[in-house]
Amino acid sequence: MGAVTEADRSPKQDRSRATRQRLLEAAVACLAEHGWTGSTVTVVSERAGVSRGAAQHHFPTREDLFTAAVEYVAEERSAALRGLFPEGAGAADRAAVVRALVDLYTGPLFRAALQLWVAASNEPQLGPRVAELEARVGRETHRIAVELLAVDESRPGARETVQGLLDMARGLGLANLLTDDAHRRDRVVHQWSHLVAGALG
Amino acid sequence: MGAVTEADRSPKQDRSRATRQRLLEAAVACLAEHGWTGSTVTVVSERAGVSRGAAQHHFPTREDLFTAAVEYVAEERSAALRGLFPEGAGAADRAAVVRALVDLYTGPLFRAALQLWVAASNEPQLGPRVAELEARVGRETHRIAVELLAVDESRPGARETVQGLLDMARGLGLANLLTDDAHRRDRVVHQWSHLVAGALG
Repeated sequence: MGAVTEADRSPKQDRSRATRQRLLEAAVACLAEHGWTGSTVTVVSERAGVSRGAAQHHFPTREDLFTAAVEYVAEERSAALRGLFPEGAGAADRAAVVRALVDLYTGPLFRAALQLWVAASNEPQLGPRVAELEARVGRETHRIAVELLAVDESRPGARETVQGLLDMARGLGLANLLTDDAHRRDRVVHQWSHLVAGALG
Repeated sequence: MGAVTEADRSPKQDRSRATRQRLLEAAVACLAEHGWTGSTVTVVSERAGVSRGAAQHHFPTREDLFTAAVEYVAEERSAALRGLFPEGAGAADRAAVVRALVDLYTGPLFRAALQLWVAASNEPQLGPRVAELEARVGRETHRIAVELLAVDESRPGARETVQGLLDMARGLGLANLLTDDAHRRDRVVHQWSHLVAGALG
């Protein structure tokens, strides 16, 4: 995500970047739809319209491709979330922020991350990498939540209030995996927005 | 789980019940450790010390075995949870109840259920059965939570407070999948016990 310099912008490098991005997006969609077992480099390459050789040039192993994909999409989602509240959010916007945070956990990114997460619990070569990735993404989401909810983390309990909110959002994502849980979720999010606002002062 | 009559207690039926129970417990342990892909009727039969034929007599299909296993262990856990607070729980015990509810989501049962849940999102023959099972187990857990926390569900927001708490517990279970999250979880549970108690009055 570093700065783009003049030299980076050669047509060849633009093409390479576009290929990489197509692979990452196809990998996340594939994980979300078919799970880890059904997600191979070959399937993703075909979906992205990229040769298997080109895919392996960008991502030498299957683990490289899928952990990079989840991380890339998580970064995109984080940027989009910050973009929703470019000026930060006041106390009046807290309910909207809570809703936007919960939305992070109900789309294809969460489905893909969940598939990778669960596969990692049974696959030794995936475990440590995914644990490290999840910790990094989790810290970043916490940072955004603290910022957008204007939380003073020096207040006793404030940090844990935000953490519990994000745990709840993750649980809501899980509840949405097999059935459309939007109606129940709306009511829960409404109530928990009040509790969080009350606790944060 | 029906009433046990005199006729049920013949030695042959006792043996059959014991075999069934060994299979169910082996199936949950196997799911938790190896995931859906690594969990076959053969692997479970061997682990339970039961012939494959006997296993198929009890559970004609792989889906029968694993959904029955998750349901059986969920019922055992629910009974154990009620057993912890045989007289119900007063307002003073609420923190202990919240802790016990969260504990439901951090052991092998949750790991097994999560594996089944995620597999069901990619396997059409598993999807509707697991969705129905999860709804049933979820309703029962909600019922226990309402009872043990002495919640008056006619109060606006009370129902959603409890639902959100169980969603949070589920999210905490997920956060514990790849790393030991006990330390952070303790602090979150402590804080949210206060918030929930305040909200429930």
